[in-house]
Amino acid sequence: MLEDAVGLGAVTLLGVLEQAYFSLQVIYARRKFSVSPPDTGGPPEFQRIFRAQANCSEYFPIFLTVLWLAGLFLSPGLSAVCGLLYLYGRLRYFWGYSASAQGRLAPLYFSAQVLWVLIGLSAVGILLTFLRVYLNVDLLQELGSALSPL
Amino acid sequence: MLEDAVGLGAVTLLGVLEQAYFSLQVIYARRKFSVSPPDTGGPPEFQRIFRAQANCSEYFPIFLTVLWLAGLFLSPGLSAVCGLLYLYGRLRYFWGYSASAQGRLAPLYFSAQVLWVLIGLSAVGILLTFLRVYLNVDLLQELGSALSPL
Amino acid sequence: MLEDAVGLGAVTLLGVLEQAYFSLQVIYARRKFSVSPPDTGGPPEFQRIFRAQANCSEYFPIFLTVLWLAGLFLSPGLSAVCGLLYLYGRLRYFWGYSASAQGRLAPLYFSAQVLWVLIGLSAVGILLTFLRVYLNVDLLQELGSALSPL
Repeated sequence: MLEDAVGLGAVTLLGVLEQAYFSLQVIYARRKFSVSPPDTGGPPEFQRIFRAQANCSEYFPIFLTVLWLAGLFLSPGLSAVCGLLYLYGRLRYFWGYSASAQGRLAPLYFSAQVLWVLIGLSAVGILLTFLRVYLNVDLLQELGSALSPL
Repeated sequence: MLEDAVGLGAVTLLGVLEQAYFSLQVIYARRKFSVSPPDTGGPPEFQRIFRAQANCSEYFPIFLTVLWLAGLFLSPGLSAVCGLLYLYGRLRYFWGYSASAQGRLAPLYFSAQVLWVLIGLSAVGILLTFLRVYLNVDLLQELGSALSPL
Repeated sequence: MLEDAVGLGAVTLLGVLEQAYFSLQVIYARRKFSVSPPDTGGPPEFQRIFRAQANCSEYFPIFLTVLWLAGLFLSPGLSAVCGLLYLYGRLRYFWGYSASAQGRLAPLYFSAQVLWVLIGLSAVGILLTFLRVYLNVDLLQELGSALSPL
């Protein structure tokens, strides 16, 4: 179990470090633009960094959830690769949004697409596990047997 | 382990899809009421949808946490049923809040109650596991033996 | 597996209860300062309580993530102790921030330090597991053998 999970664990930890980096950027932006807590207003430059971090934070639990669902129920390796792509997309989103509201869009769409892939992998994994456990049907194996005579 | 968890996994995935639905509603509302990021102000109609999604997002990690605690330490089936009720309550909360601030209250109380049930189940499960592991007492089995002569 | 995890489960549940306590304080503050949802403005006293809860909520998934990474990949006991320290720090942060913006700082730094310790433990645990699984090297055992003749 832990053997399968070590790659997922590494991607998860990398994600935590990325979130820590985003949080530090908000702290620096608070100093630079003199926006003291609990105030969350301020100039658009600050607002964008603040919202970029808030958006990444909001999606982080959802990302971890589908990373581990897809990893445990289908494929830890495939899921970890998608995880790395997502974290890369979020880094580009944060930098893009910090520069301009327009700059957030392309990497946001990319991250969303990777998230949908992980949701799809989770759904397939859960369905296959369900069939194996409750209906005693191993769809992957049956597919393999059906294709092997070809 | 994965056999026990497949129902919890399915409820978790359903929850992720619900959160995706809420996020899409905020995007549509941003377009409809012309509130461009990073702005989060705007008319009350937009504010309500924005806050409804923010509130659901905030509670989502807590929901998943107690869903899995109750499921792994006590009963995957019971926990999954509570999870479905919670997600249904959140859907009604989102629709209710979108319509009026008053409309959020009844489903909010319902969701909170289901969450407390899951917290209670988690506490019972952790307590029973603790007794079994550290004091070698299987309370459920002892209760069963005590009741069986009746 | 569940035997190892029961301490982590207990700390997790305690964290959920702490979050529930923070949420209730925001509800009471909304009543006291007459700030009706979806409004999130209001007097500084309300803003501080609102932001304190929002900050704790935002970090809660990250806390749980590193609590379980460090617990499963390295040491459940050590991780659970760090978890208790973190939750204590967050309680003092919430009370401090409710009193004054300045009052949030000392416990915030304390909580952040505990979080970094958990991140460090997670990194060590994942590295050791990786070495054991993929390179067949048990670093802890080798260290033990190297030190035992002394």
